[in-house]
Amino acid sequence: MAVYTDINEGDLKAFLTQYDAGELLSYKGIAEGVENSNFLLHTSKFPLILTLYEKRVEKNDLPFFLGLMHHLADRGLSCPLPLPRKDGALLGELSGRPAALISFLEGMWLRKPEVKHCREVGRALAAMHVAGEGFALKRPNALALEGWKGLWAKSKDRADEVETGLEEEIGNELAFLAAHWPKDLPQGVIHADLFPDNVFFLDDELSGLIDFYFACNDFLVYDLSICLNAWCFEKDGAYNITKGMAMIEGYQSVRPLSEAEITALPTLCRGSALRFFLTRLYDWLMTPAGALVVKKDPLEYLKKLRFHRQVATSAEYGLIR
Amino acid sequence: MAVYTDINEGDLKAFLTQYDAGELLSYKGIAEGVENSNFLLHTSKFPLILTLYEKRVEKNDLPFFLGLMHHLADRGLSCPLPLPRKDGALLGELSGRPAALISFLEGMWLRKPEVKHCREVGRALAAMHVAGEGFALKRPNALALEGWKGLWAKSKDRADEVETGLEEEIGNELAFLAAHWPKDLPQGVIHADLFPDNVFFLDDELSGLIDFYFACNDFLVYDLSICLNAWCFEKDGAYNITKGMAMIEGYQSVRPLSEAEITALPTLCRGSALRFFLTRLYDWLMTPAGALVVKKDPLEYLKKLRFHRQVATSAEYGLIR
Repeated sequence: MAVYTDINEGDLKAFLTQYDAGELLSYKGIAEGVENSNFLLHTSKFPLILTLYEKRVEKNDLPFFLGLMHHLADRGLSCPLPLPRKDGALLGELSGRPAALISFLEGMWLRKPEVKHCREVGRALAAMHVAGEGFALKRPNALALEGWKGLWAKSKDRADEVETGLEEEIGNELAFLAAHWPKDLPQGVIHADLFPDNVFFLDDELSGLIDFYFACNDFLVYDLSICLNAWCFEKDGAYNITKGMAMIEGYQSVRPLSEAEITALPTLCRGSALRFFLTRLYDWLMTPAGALVVKKDPLEYLKKLRFHRQVATSAEYGLIR
Repeated sequence: MAVYTDINEGDLKAFLTQYDAGELLSYKGIAEGVENSNFLLHTSKFPLILTLYEKRVEKNDLPFFLGLMHHLADRGLSCPLPLPRKDGALLGELSGRPAALISFLEGMWLRKPEVKHCREVGRALAAMHVAGEGFALKRPNALALEGWKGLWAKSKDRADEVETGLEEEIGNELAFLAAHWPKDLPQGVIHADLFPDNVFFLDDELSGLIDFYFACNDFLVYDLSICLNAWCFEKDGAYNITKGMAMIEGYQSVRPLSEAEITALPTLCRGSALRFFLTRLYDWLMTPAGALVVKKDPLEYLKKLRFHRQVATSAEYGLIR
């Protein structure tokens, strides 16, 4: 639930004069997204999303995020499109925060995605990877190996509060991943956070991808490993190989995986499970009791991590040769 | 910030088949209202508000609230209109909660209302009182004298935690109001919560009143006393008589006050200040530290109450004869 900064009408109207967006009719804070404040605007022209970027987002990264959305939309990917100001800038300022107006994408995220949706997500992820080619800006992945080590250094002394033995288990995992992380897979722009709440559907058709605020440059197949973690496990913790198969098939129907990518997939799945485990663990330990944030359980990702540790080859994810 | 109950697309679509509302295109939880869960829906026909009534709202009161909105809208008041189901019912059920679809009203609530807006609010309040005539259902005001006594009984032992001496001061105030509360003023349907966030404006024109979930039968001029408390004090706690004058003038331009109402106004202002003081005090004392609710400061209304205690006649609120 996210409205950290309230805005008043006068400031908003002044902000809107910098755009060709029509007359303001209404604005409502919306309870989605956890990093920024988001408002749904109705104007005489079209509905819009107004995003105010809060402190957790690095201001220097905003041109990458907004430019990427433009680049992807230009290449036919259905994603929110930042509305340029009359002076051409994609980024403005409102209520003391960097702010952008972004096209409103109709569609709904699925609370209970099914196999067919996983196939669509695989396809869309690959389409995004292809569309991202040629994007000029770069952003290193702040939540890759070095970032994990930093998070772990800040959490490990208290990790056993969450489950006894965690300090040793995660320390070993990090050492394994540091030693076995692949070095030479195909790279490009990845979404890095393509969870169900970031994919919209209209009926059973995928209508768009949103929330590019973790996007960065990394191994493309690492993005697929994030999606396998985010979409293909059931509530009881079991991996659903039918979903995994559909997602990988969907992905390969647009961008076939190389032999090296297929071999690396189990290690990358361990890495992405660890990545979400570590950010959740950190938030879990550091968020003051009763803050206005719903804490996500880090143990969900610990279970996934343990599953991946048992996986020998990508066939176990449903990859068919 | 209010989304207490999440809904999934399947349930929502099944719910919508009971209405003639077009195809669902999107729904977003909105961060407004504190009692219920609210979603903004886009359909192929029109935008709508979906409200899920949470436990704090008495289910037996819903026909009063929804029927009242219908009654007022039928008589030309600009307020949200419940969309009837195909079977004529105004109330349905979704995700285990009573639920209603309500027309979306364009407009914005003012973070910094000015004198001219207070005049419009006075006019609209009186227009609502007139439009409410003939509404068949009744709902006693649960937050009148007896309700205040009940709240006070649950809070008074801890009142001095908030400010020393409060237990005695508020005890005396309640005794005064019980002895001097008027008995024979004009009654009707009142809004009972017409704060700035419940009044929408488009430019400087009032575009509608919302949130009728405290509406009830009581003295009409008591509603005006609530609005004087809610709109006519500045952030520093000072009463702005220019705003009060405009609001009372606006009210009387539609429904002139009787001599008895004018005489009673200072006592009613004490009552309404006490009413909001008591609910805020109760929430302040009872809400667990760190719950997902922003606690409003009860002392704001203690200051207003003390101001009203010094008022001798309605002229001090800006009422001109």
